[in-house]
Amino acid sequence: MSRAFFRALEQSPAGSCFALESMLCQLSFDSQGLIPVITQCAESGEVLMMAWMNAQSLRQTLDTGRMTYWSRSRQQLWAKGETSGHIQQLEEMRIDCDGDALLCRVTQQGPACHTGRRHCFYYSIEHSDSAECPDSTESLKSRVRVTASVPESK
Amino acid sequence: MSRAFFRALEQSPAGSCFALESMLCQLSFDSQGLIPVITQCAESGEVLMMAWMNAQSLRQTLDTGRMTYWSRSRQQLWAKGETSGHIQQLEEMRIDCDGDALLCRVTQQGPACHTGRRHCFYYSIEHSDSAECPDSTESLKSRVRVTASVPESK
Repeated sequence: MSRAFFRALEQSPAGSCFALESMLCQLSFDSQGLIPVITQCAESGEVLMMAWMNAQSLRQTLDTGRMTYWSRSRQQLWAKGETSGHIQQLEEMRIDCDGDALLCRVTQQGPACHTGRRHCFYYSIEHSDSAECPDSTESLKSRVRVTASVPESK
Repeated sequence: MSRAFFRALEQSPAGSCFALESMLCQLSFDSQGLIPVITQCAESGEVLMMAWMNAQSLRQTLDTGRMTYWSRSRQQLWAKGETSGHIQQLEEMRIDCDGDALLCRVTQQGPACHTGRRHCFYYSIEHSDSAECPDSTESLKSRVRVTASVPESK
């Protein structure tokens, strides 16, 4: 099992190296054949988006150096930016401790989000102080604030 | 549908606010009732881990200010650090453009990874130059390098 494979490697010190193929075949893909991918701007550290890869898109990403996901809505390979030009160049791919998530650091051309925003995580949850809430049975009023507008050029 | 709900909000300018409850009830939880959560260090921007929340753990996280996940392996709520003391204080929670992923910026006490490492993404994929590969049928030799050791205290 993938979990046992990664457990056995946990004590490996920094600098230890393993053949990529032996690691890739132990990754945990879900029942749809997918693994979650966190995409982060290599320069700023900003988390740009979260999406999914299957084994084929993962291979294509490594072979081409361009982020290629699996589109769950379209059920097809999705080379990011193939129509928009908003390509993500892979700078580094990392695997997590139990082989069921990937972190990709990229150089993003243009916006990462399909809305034209720089990244996808533009809804921020805010809490108000309880003192501002007239209804004493509700100690917190919470809301979601949009942190970025769609650029005017879109 | 959640997707239509978020589509309708896409043009909302920065500063727009919505009731939290109306957003939370439109989040896309998967067939297991889970939503993926990216946890990022609020100070450094380092991505610490990826895990999952169900509606209950999400609510508990917002109510307590401490990251509470759903453990898929143990099938129970998992208040991060409840046994280890490696608590994650929620600084900000964000929702992505189509309501199917969360980004949580946290202050982490101690290591985030169960192995004792600061974060979970310590396997880095490296490519070698083709010139270093004696086998001409394989243009790239790739390997995975461990980027951090388990601390001596563990």
